[in-house]
This record gives sequence, C-alpha cells and structure tokens, in this order.
Amino acid sequence: MTKETFRKLENYMLECMKDSAHDKEHIYRVLYSALDIANKEENVDYDVLISACLLHDIAREEQNKNPSLCHAEAGAEKAYKYLTENGFDVIFAEKVKHCIKSHRFRKNNTPETTEAKILFDADKIDAAGTLGIARTLVYQGAMAEPLYSVLPDGRVSDGTDDKIPSFFQEYKFKLEKIYSRFYTVRGKEIAEDRRKTAESFYNDMLNEVSSTYNNGTALLNKTIK
Amino acid sequence: MTKETFRKLENYMLECMKDSAHDKEHIYRVLYSALDIANKEENVDYDVLISACLLHDIAREEQNKNPSLCHAEAGAEKAYKYLTENGFDVIFAEKVKHCIKSHRFRKNNTPETTEAKILFDADKIDAAGTLGIARTLVYQGAMAEPLYSVLPDGRVSDGTDDKIPSFFQEYKFKLEKIYSRFYTVRGKEIAEDRRKTAESFYNDMLNEVSSTYNNGTALLNKTIK
Repeated sequence: MTKETFRKLENYMLECMKDSAHDKEHIYRVLYSALDIANKEENVDYDVLISACLLHDIAREEQNKNPSLCHAEAGAEKAYKYLTENGFDVIFAEKVKHCIKSHRFRKNNTPETTEAKILFDADKIDAAGTLGIARTLVYQGAMAEPLYSVLPDGRVSDGTDDKIPSFFQEYKFKLEKIYSRFYTVRGKEIAEDRRKTAESFYNDMLNEVSSTYNNGTALLNKTIK
Repeated sequence: MTKETFRKLENYMLECMKDSAHDKEHIYRVLYSALDIANKEENVDYDVLISACLLHDIAREEQNKNPSLCHAEAGAEKAYKYLTENGFDVIFAEKVKHCIKSHRFRKNNTPETTEAKILFDADKIDAAGTLGIARTLVYQGAMAEPLYSVLPDGRVSDGTDDKIPSFFQEYKFKLEKIYSRFYTVRGKEIAEDRRKTAESFYNDMLNEVSSTYNNGTALLNKTIK
C-alpha cells in the first residue's frame, strides 16, 4: 500500500470516528497487532488487511445511535460503498467487506480468509490483558454502569451469575473467556502473554473491595444499634 | 448512632446521588474504610464520623453542573442545613460540616479533628490500589478522555509532562503521589498495602501499549511505501 492510500483510508476512518478518542486509539492498536500477527503468517494480502483494520469500526457511531444494528455488518457495507466509490476495485472491496463483517463473535459470520482471521484476532487482543480491563471500565463509565453488585447478604458479588451489568460481571462473562478464541498462533501467543495482567487486576480488585465490605459491615453492625 | 438515624441519613445521601451507581459505591467504601481506621484511633465520635462519611459527596451533582463550585464546600453547607433542619443540634452539625469541608486536598481547608482526618484518609484510600485505577478509568469514560497520548515520534507517552488529560497523565499527576498524604497510621497502612496493585496495572498497561505501538509502527513503515 502507498502512503497516499493509507492516509486516505486513515482520514476517512478518523472522519467516521468523529471525536471518540477511545475508538481511535483502538483502531491503531488493532492495526499494529494485526501487522505483528501477519508477520508470522504466509501469503497475507497487506492491502486488504490494512484497509480492513482501519475501517473495521466505522459504523460504531451508527450502532451507538441504534443498538439493534450490528456495527460489523453495517461497517462492512459502509466500507464496501466507500471503497468502490473511491477507485478501489470490486474484488478488493469484497475481500475487505468479508473481514469487517466477520470480526465479531457471530455464529453466522465467521472469518474464512487469512486477513479476516488476523483482524478477528487483533481485535480480540484489545480485550485481553490491561487493555481489556481499561476499555471495559471506560465503557462502564460512559454507560454509568456500576463496578460490581452487592449481594443481599452485604458481600460483594464476584460477577458470576450476576444479572445486572457491571465491571465484575463483564469480566466473568466475557474478558475471562476470550483466551481460547483465537485463530492464529501469534494472536493466541500475544493474548496469553497478557492474560496474567488482567487476571491480577480482577483478583486484586475483588480482594480489595471484598475486604473493605466484609470488615466494614462487621464494624458498622457493632456501631449502630 | 441508632439504625433509624443511619437509615435517615443514608436515604438522604441516596436521594442526593440520584442514579449515580459509582458515587453510591464510593460512599459505602469510604464509610467502611473510615470505620476500619477509627477502630485503631482513640476518642472517635462515631456519630460525627458516620454522618460525615455518608454526606461527604452530597454536592457532587452541583459541582458536575457548575465546575467552578467546590463539592466539599457546597456539601458542607448542604449537610449543615439538612442536619439542623432535621433535628440534629448545631454543635453536632458544625462538627460534621468541618469534616466534609476539609475532605479534599485544599491548602485553606485542612482536617483539624480526628473525625475529619479519618474521613480525609478514607476518601484517599479509594484513590489507592485498584479502586484508584478503576475510578479514574470510569471517569475517563464518562468524560470521553483518552487512555494515553501519542508523542510526535509515534511512541506512547508514559503521562509525565503531558498537557492533555488522559489516564496515564492522571496516574502520574495524582494516583502515583497520594501514598505520602495520609494523616492516620491505619489509613497509611491500608493505602500502602494497595500501592503495588495500582503500580502493577500502570506498568503492565504502559508495557503492553508501548510494545504494540513500537512493533506496529516499525512494521507499518516497512509495509507502506
């Protein structure tokens, strides 16, 4: 890919992201992780891969406005339209479209090509380790969701079996489970390297919060009559 | 304090918090940490302490609407008004007011009484360890601020000397420095116990993000011409 083409796609991506600082950072990390994975794979079409990385979340805004819409499906269509209207050929645009459409966990849209598998894994790496923790907490802040739920007996729930959305629930339902869901050797390796940092944070936080509540409620019960 | 009085103050606090799940959780953690600290102090007035803990952030909403307003000063006045209008005596209300007014880092409002020092420390414990990290990231999400800044040379800044607000900047400017700012022995001890969990998270995240950018930009420069 030429620098000129890269800048053109990058500018279109930035335009779609508007002022979402978090989303922009995510795009560059996914691109960089994808290049790291691709470096260990054979016969990678870098033009398809780089285009798909840059454009994979361009319909986030649309999904935020209408949560019933899937940003992967909508983004695939939006990217196809943009590419075919801006001098890229139809076969190329189809390849990029497949990558974007299949980058989420969806039974009916699984990545079939090398580039699609790389994008899928690079996107999942951003849900591993400290980035997975940080991005989840940022989301909780934007959505005004709590960090954890308190059980009827006054103890803090570790997130297992929780019905109410919270950081601990998201960790148990999603973050903890992603490490088995990689297509590429290098993708799995990067995620595994980072698994411990996410586990430590969750365990440390659960420990700090639980001890605060357990000691505190015992002392409060002794103090108020 | 009677259970009835506790519930009355708790309900007033919950009313002031409206639907801010994060703020509510913070209040209970501060109350519980304060009771832990108080357990190692002598001559603590538990009625003043518990009231001050429950009411210390009741003017957060007012500060959110008008950032030039200090929630500690406004909250102190609001608590005094509530208490004197609801059957608590003026001397008691004055003591609670002092605790609330002096619970932030402010040169002209420092905690003078045992109860004020305990509240100050209990509030600062919530900026130590994993809770300090989690609450900062939640704030970043609510404010749509970025996780880090990228330097002109493409490397990720560690937050030192940053002018633009971000999670790394806040860690370097505030979170990293709070451990020396405690009044009570037990407060300092709890915070010190948690220092390592915050340091680990920051260091792990800086390492994961930096390696992603450093490897990625090198590979990108080789790929685009």
